Amino acid sequence: MTGSPFTLVAASSECAARCGEVATLHGAVKTPVFMPVGTQATVKGVTPEDLGTLGAQIILGNTYHLFIRPGHELIREFGGLHGFMHWDRPILTDSGGFQIFSLQELAKISEQGAEFRSHLDGKKLFLSPEDAVHVQEALGADIMMVLDTCIPYPADREEAGKATALTNRWAGRCREARSDTGQLLFGIVQGGMYSDLRRQAAEELVDIGFDGYALGGLSVGEPKELMLEMLGETVPFLPSDYPVYLMGVGTPEDLVEGVYRGVDMFDCVMPTRNARNGMLFTSSGRLVIKNSRYRDDHRPVDEQCNCYTCRHYSRAYLRHLFQSRELLACQLNSIHNLHYYCSLMADIRAAISEDRFADFRKAFYRQRELKS
Amino acid sequence: MTGSPFTLVAASSECAARCGEVATLHGAVKTPVFMPVGTQATVKGVTPEDLGTLGAQIILGNTYHLFIRPGHELIREFGGLHGFMHWDRPILTDSGGFQIFSLQELAKISEQGAEFRSHLDGKKLFLSPEDAVHVQEALGADIMMVLDTCIPYPADREEAGKATALTNRWAGRCREARSDTGQLLFGIVQGGMYSDLRRQAAEELVDIGFDGYALGGLSVGEPKELMLEMLGETVPFLPSDYPVYLMGVGTPEDLVEGVYRGVDMFDCVMPTRNARNGMLFTSSGRLVIKNSRYRDDHRPVDEQCNCYTCRHYSRAYLRHLFQSRELLACQLNSIHNLHYYCSLMADIRAAISEDRFADFRKAFYRQRELKS
Repeated sequence: MTGSPFTLVAASSECAARCGEVATLHGAVKTPVFMPVGTQATVKGVTPEDLGTLGAQIILGNTYHLFIRPGHELIREFGGLHGFMHWDRPILTDSGGFQIFSLQELAKISEQGAEFRSHLDGKKLFLSPEDAVHVQEALGADIMMVLDTCIPYPADREEAGKATALTNRWAGRCREARSDTGQLLFGIVQGGMYSDLRRQAAEELVDIGFDGYALGGLSVGEPKELMLEMLGETVPFLPSDYPVYLMGVGTPEDLVEGVYRGVDMFDCVMPTRNARNGMLFTSSGRLVIKNSRYRDDHRPVDEQCNCYTCRHYSRAYLRHLFQSRELLACQLNSIHNLHYYCSLMADIRAAISEDRFADFRKAFYRQRELKS
Repeated sequence: MTGSPFTLVAASSECAARCGEVATLHGAVKTPVFMPVGTQATVKGVTPEDLGTLGAQIILGNTYHLFIRPGHELIREFGGLHGFMHWDRPILTDSGGFQIFSLQELAKISEQGAEFRSHLDGKKLFLSPEDAVHVQEALGADIMMVLDTCIPYPADREEAGKATALTNRWAGRCREARSDTGQLLFGIVQGGMYSDLRRQAAEELVDIGFDGYALGGLSVGEPKELMLEMLGETVPFLPSDYPVYLMGVGTPEDLVEGVYRGVDMFDCVMPTRNARNGMLFTSSGRLVIKNSRYRDDHRPVDEQCNCYTCRHYSRAYLRHLFQSRELLACQLNSIHNLHYYCSLMADIRAAISEDRFADFRKAFYRQRELKS
């Protein structure tokens, strides 16, 4: 560690929202930022050039998936994920913890690490905290995440406490295992829905010392209010001169609320997954493209949007593609939804820079109410 | 009809190969040309911009599919296929005959036209020769095709003769039904595998008078030699100052042989369909990307290719995408295969222009033998 990679650029005078930059080996990332998810070394349905055009600054790769296919050693040979997938901007990789946790009965967690079976062929595999770091180093991630254990919702206090303590012991081992590559390593604050556990976890991780701090185990089924409560009661205990990352979140509303509470970084499969299911995000809310009301609708998805899809295609055409199960439906819908997320973040950054984020937040909700 | 849309630019001194231009409402098409197939108002897996970049001059739409979904009247409202799908170069539409024929027991052919049931919802529909023209006029096709009846292979002489005669009566009705829109209308020479029937059909169609002439009912299961024989025995009876189109063909070898025998235009789903199945065309033959030998192959699909896919991605990455069933596999493979087809045609045009097509043809086969 050679100090924080984070530089503060602007801060709201009314809430915890802030603008900054995170310095990485592949350049600086302006925050608050949304990171499109590229699980298997590709963001589903779009090319790296599409991502650049729509304003993606950094993407996420999934260590679990890449570890089991095609394997991190193969990817290392190709110059890491950047060379393998033809993307020259920053990449963050998760640690695999969340995916392994999702395997449920296929996974066995011990002090040593996570034993699990591949969802592809059932092969028995093992990932220790040290392995997780070494795999991510091989992947060439600009930002690596510590291996963590996830806590289901609901979970009793004892279970949450044990899992959080294990996550923090693993965090220490990850910190020790990292090499001097210039790749950043973020800690992950667990603690379930217990704010005192989260606070304690945050303090312990800060003592170990990371390049940034993530909030894990949120948006796992708990009520929205509870997620926001946990956020509000954890962020204040993280060092304000380091980046804060809310993992796996979320809806456009979640991004606005996260920023309001001091979050700098977000990732979620929602824009791409919903695109493939025909659900499009617009400035006035959601639009389900297969709806028959769009059959002969000449308008673009969102008249306020200037993405490639909205510049060239009507709702009627997008509906036709979706009904016809055409590949282009996925491509055009994904471009639109990712553009929506990335421009929302650009608008948020502009609002914070001009210290009008609180107004921006109000207008964001008002527009949805008016048009829905 | 106001004379032929075809202008001869160059002709081989050794065979029937020739270069020309076909003038359409959306500009001139340099021939010989390959037309990517955009069945449902999209060429599967690529954007119109991709098509432009890889050198597609003209694409094909399928009247049958567009007639049943989303409907030609809807497409007319959007400025025809061009406006609907955001493509400003020429479009050729087939007449629907081949698809209706493929429905087999769902279709009933009478003197009036084709009665059939939609493969989507079983709804009973009817298409007369006049309807086929009016639908294609609504679609805004630059080149329309007459409604034809297809002849299975094998077919006895009587069956082939009857179907061919009906096709030609329908051709006359299509010719009468067309409006004065400037859209071109091509006749289709049937005749099964009987060269005298094909010759007679060609002569009758020429008497009616079309803007171009297509060979239908080839590559329907007959031996390759028989297809080439039919080609060789039909093209000479078509007027040399009009474009000649071989429908639904074919492999790269078929294109070379078709050009050799005087064909100007081709279309086929092969490059896009094979792309989705992981079969890639290269200057030295075919490559099945899922093969484990490509697991860590750093080379592009084809070292002689300068398409987007070959410029940026390794075989190993493409294999990974294919194995992972990622959308990007379809996109990148389709771009490569379509680029292969379009550049093959560009190379053929250059060879004919410089009167070295016979040599080109020899080298084309030699390269495949050497590297296979």
